Amino acid sequence: MRVLGIDPGTAITGYGLVDFDEELRLVECGAIVTPVGLTLPQRLLIIHRRLSELILQYQPQAVAVEELFFSKNVRTAMSVGQARGVILLAAAQAAVPIYHYKPSEVKQSIAGYGAASKPQMQEMVRLLLKLDAVLTPDDVADAVAIAICHAHGAHWNQLLADDEPLD
Amino acid sequence: MRVLGIDPGTAITGYGLVDFDEELRLVECGAIVTPVGLTLPQRLLIIHRRLSELILQYQPQAVAVEELFFSKNVRTAMSVGQARGVILLAAAQAAVPIYHYKPSEVKQSIAGYGAASKPQMQEMVRLLLKLDAVLTPDDVADAVAIAICHAHGAHWNQLLADDEPLD
Repeated sequence: MRVLGIDPGTAITGYGLVDFDEELRLVECGAIVTPVGLTLPQRLLIIHRRLSELILQYQPQAVAVEELFFSKNVRTAMSVGQARGVILLAAAQAAVPIYHYKPSEVKQSIAGYGAASKPQMQEMVRLLLKLDAVLTPDDVADAVAIAICHAHGAHWNQLLADDEPLD
Repeated sequence: MRVLGIDPGTAITGYGLVDFDEELRLVECGAIVTPVGLTLPQRLLIIHRRLSELILQYQPQAVAVEELFFSKNVRTAMSVGQARGVILLAAAQAAVPIYHYKPSEVKQSIAGYGAASKPQMQEMVRLLLKLDAVLTPDDVADAVAIAICHAHGAHWNQLLADDEPLD
């Protein structure tokens, strides 16, 4: 299974593609950085276009993004919301199913507990993917973590489904 | 000049098209209502598709939307933000310039003062467009008000530009 994890933002949108079959493998990751000085619509255009290209090129079976969060302020929520909107649109246009995870679920899945720190998360992502160094910037590490979270969850859901006929 | 005003929302997105040359004229207005039970990505897909169709069909010279607002809660901001994102994207994809107005600017422009009530605004929109009845629902009336606000402003900006060579 191939999962595209995304950490939305109008200035920087992190993305990470992981394959998960026998083991976990990082296929590609990066940050869509929109130049300072562009208008918001121009930035959204770049994010939507780049995401659509990535989906076309890598054909993920699922897109995973963070759920609505409530701790940040209204201006941030509106800004992230706009980026999130065009990202969900790109996935929907390509008919790729979208999954949402709470930040605490992502932390639980990667580090084993829901209040893990950012350095702990980065280090666990590095270990899980057998990388030489932690992923930077944060937006990329977060996107890859969400992809792994879904891959883990989807894996267990799959196992549960396989078990069902035995009950 | 033809202006498309939009009041974004994931459940209901109001829109209003006005022409403004010698006088103000309502071309078309309505609400994009996304069915309850659809997923958020499906709703964004409908909003984006319908907006793109409207822009293609009516060829507005400008799109006007409300600016970021700060009074509502984070969940609302995120939800409106996602709808706003795909709306700005549709306009940017069609290369239509987008203008933002604060709610108080819209009220000032339509009713003459920035703290006008909703019924006052609806009645002023009715009078300005010479309609028999006020526009409903609110989302439609708000969208048309934003379009008129831009038409008014663009008109004055145009006048100012015409005046400049005389200085």
